Formats: sequence, structure tokens, C-alpha cells
Amino acid sequence: MLQIAKCGHSATEKLGFTRLCGIEAIGLSRNRKSLLKPILAKEDNGASRIEDGHQVKKPNVLTPLANHSAALFGKNLREKSNIGNSMNILWHECPIQKLDREHLLQQKGCVIWLTGLSGSGKSTLACFLSRSLHSRGKLTYILDGDNIRHGLNRDLSFRAEDRAENIRRIGEVAKLLADAGLICIASLISPYRKDRDACRALLPEGNFIEVFIDVPLEVCEARDPKGLYKLARAGKIKGFTGIDDPYEPPYSCEVGIYCLTCVALALD
Amino acid sequence: MLQIAKCGHSATEKLGFTRLCGIEAIGLSRNRKSLLKPILAKEDNGASRIEDGHQVKKPNVLTPLANHSAALFGKNLREKSNIGNSMNILWHECPIQKLDREHLLQQKGCVIWLTGLSGSGKSTLACFLSRSLHSRGKLTYILDGDNIRHGLNRDLSFRAEDRAENIRRIGEVAKLLADAGLICIASLISPYRKDRDACRALLPEGNFIEVFIDVPLEVCEARDPKGLYKLARAGKIKGFTGIDDPYEPPYSCEVGIYCLTCVALALD
Repeated sequence: MLQIAKCGHSATEKLGFTRLCGIEAIGLSRNRKSLLKPILAKEDNGASRIEDGHQVKKPNVLTPLANHSAALFGKNLREKSNIGNSMNILWHECPIQKLDREHLLQQKGCVIWLTGLSGSGKSTLACFLSRSLHSRGKLTYILDGDNIRHGLNRDLSFRAEDRAENIRRIGEVAKLLADAGLICIASLISPYRKDRDACRALLPEGNFIEVFIDVPLEVCEARDPKGLYKLARAGKIKGFTGIDDPYEPPYSCEVGIYCLTCVALALD
Repeated sequence: MLQIAKCGHSATEKLGFTRLCGIEAIGLSRNRKSLLKPILAKEDNGASRIEDGHQVKKPNVLTPLANHSAALFGKNLREKSNIGNSMNILWHECPIQKLDREHLLQQKGCVIWLTGLSGSGKSTLACFLSRSLHSRGKLTYILDGDNIRHGLNRDLSFRAEDRAENIRRIGEVAKLLADAGLICIASLISPYRKDRDACRALLPEGNFIEVFIDVPLEVCEARDPKGLYKLARAGKIKGFTGIDDPYEPPYSCEVGIYCLTCVALALD
């Protein structure tokens, strides 16, 4: 009953993901161009550019020594900016960039965002993906929505605004992990399109791979691995996704997994 | 005028840092045991344990098939817990652990926490460290206090409680990066001991390397690369560290850099 569909962007191809079928839904070529080896960071080219949405202007004239210093310490890349509540905050850029880390790791930093109802199998799929990619020498890290509520997001409740903040923060951390060169696997219900799209907008195009695990509510509820649907039906949990709060399916995800039994029930 | 002193714990030795002198203050041996290569994740040993402060109990009896499933998907590691504001939140553990990622990267995930006054040279040192380690094939990532205020912490002001929250969140992200296997270089003033100690407490012993850049206030103020001391003296910035808000030096940092001119003025 497992069907893998690819929709919307072709980011998975760009990122080198292959074999969109069966249990190897998201895999990477086993042929690595080279083993990881120490490399030298690139020298800075001295041009202005946009970095993560912030324009970084550099001095027009740099002596060779100053150029060397910039490459070593990143000092010449400072420019003042004021964003949000941050006054007098400078953007400091370091000569070691995402591309350098990707070269070191021989992989592309990106975010695989798993979205779907509670009990749809997101965490299970996240673990499978992590193990599968790790066995191919790829560095991954799982941001599990539940786990992050034990640490970074421990101050957040389940009120609507805190739920949005929960997703915003995970999106920001996912962006940092992708920038660090990792394949970040984010696993959280993330029921609203606008929240997911806001996280997508944080990353360069093609670096956000939205995977919709489309398991019907009745299957998730029948499974109810955490007993949460039962509590929600009894009115003991308010605003539970699928019961008294909506889940908004993606309009154009990169990967859709339409599955009645496989992901949700594979291990039951 | 550059002096490197080592104080408190011997974590740097445990982590393989060598040569605590001169410009190679924090370096790594150039001899890597092996090039990075794909490895298989370890199978789970089925024992109970503490993971990041949360006890994870596993079923006492697992069939071989169930054991295999747990290793693949991590499903059997679920236990309910309630922490902080998080009700009905489960801790989901994946069979790919920090040790597996460290094995892949051939390095130890840790946090190097650079603390010191504004203008003491934290960002400069962070960039140097990152480049130096990268050239040795080590995966690093800089969490710059200023940069994070453009993203994850863009909602925070400079009120006392928001400053503490700023550091708490960076500490939590640093913990995630170290858990991902990276050498995370956190660079922020972090003036209060209790905030730094709270971040230290998030990590396993020996994984938090506090580096105090002890540049005197008068040197930082004379340098004033961002013009912030001038604004603070003019009363245009309130609660500025070193002017009308205290900096609390560490009691027992792993590394102290006592420097009148080198770090602060090297590139002026």
C-alpha cells in the first residue's frame, strides 16, 4: 500500500536524492566522489553579495594584507544593520562558508521537513532516513518536534502563538544545521501551511524538501500510539490536530507519501 | 603580549586539543586516525539509560525482530514524560547517536564557548579557530551572538530577561550542534556566570570548553570597533557590559587568554 509520489519542485533531484520508490524512498547514491579529506577554505573574492538575506558590503579597496586578514578572520565583512528588535547588531561573516563545509562532508546541507498527523509515522520515517543516510556516510541530524520541547522550546505552551513560535524556532535551527552542512531531518506535525512556508523561506531555493506523510486520520486514530487521540476525543486535550484543529496539506510538497498502512502500521 | 593560560578542567586534553601557546592556541593534531568513511550504526544494546538527562526505559523483553526494528526505527525507545510546559510529550530516540556521528566525522562533538567584553576579539578568534580546524578536516560551526539575533533570537530585546533567554537559546542550539558531532564555536559576551554555567550544565562533562578572552575594558573601549562604547558613554545605550552593567569573569574556565593587544588589536 506504499506509494511514493513526487510533486512540485525537483529539489530532490538537485540534491542527489534517488530512487523514489519502495522503502528506499529517499536515498543517496552509494558512489561518493571522494572520501572526506581536509581541505583549505577558499579565499574571499572581495565581491559584495547577499548572505542569508542580508547584504554584506565589503570595502572597495583592500590591500593584499587586509585581504589575507579578511580571509583569516572575517573582520572586513562587518557592516551594521538593524533587524527586528536587534539594534546596533552587526552581521559577522566568517571565511569558512557553507560550501566549504559541504565540500568537507561531500554532501549538500539541506532540510528534509516531515509533516503529517500525529501517529502518521514521522518519527519512524525520520529514524529510518537517518540510519539509511548514515550508513552511506552522510551526516544527518533529526530535529524531533517532541524532543525539542524538552530543551530549546521548553518554555512554550500549546497555545496557538506558542505553537507557531515552536515551528519558527525549529525552522531557524534547521536552517543553521543545513548551513552547517548537515542533512537536517525535521519531524513535526506542523499543521499550518503558512508556518511551513515561513520555514521554507528561510532557506535557499531547493534546500527545503517538504515530505507530506499522508496517512488518513482514521488510520492514525486507530493506531493512536501515544493515546492522544483518545484524550482529545474525551475533551482532555484541546486544539488537537485532526480532531478540533485543522491540518492543512501542502499544495506543492517535494515528496508525498500516500500510505494506508505501511508507515503507520509497519511496526505494530 | 599574548599569554595562554589553562585553568580548571582538563577537558581540552580529553578532547585532543594540543599546543596551548602562541597563535596555535587551540589546535588539533594533524594526524587523523583515518579518513572519514561510511560506517554502519551500532545496534542498540537494549539497556536502560539516561539520555540528555531524560531516563529512557526500554521494554525488558524484545524479540529479535523487535530489536531489529528498534535499531532501524527507534520505536521501542518511547516513554512518556512531562517536562516544563510540555504535557504529553514523548522522548523519541533514534538508533543513530552522537557516538555514531563522531565516528563518521572522526572528531568529538563539543562546544567552545568564547566569552569576553564587546571588542575583545571573540568573533575574530572564532573565525580563526573555525578556519584553523577546518583546514585540519574538522567540521565546525560558529554561533555568533550578533548573527543569531538576526534569526532565531530576532524576537528578543536587550532587557535583562531577554538577554538571559538569548543565551539560553544559544546554549540549547550549541548543545544540538555538539550532539550532531560538530565542534560548535559560540561567540557572545555572555557576561553572567549563571547563564554560562547553565549552558555548561546542558552538556556532558568535558564537552563545554569555556574560553575567557580577558582583554581589559580600556583596551576594548579604545578600540571600539562598533562605536558602541561611545554610545554607551553618551547614555544612548543602557545596560552596556563594562560601562553600566557588570561582566563576571569565569571562576574556572578551561582556557583563559590574557591579552593586552594581540587579539584585540591584531588587525587594527
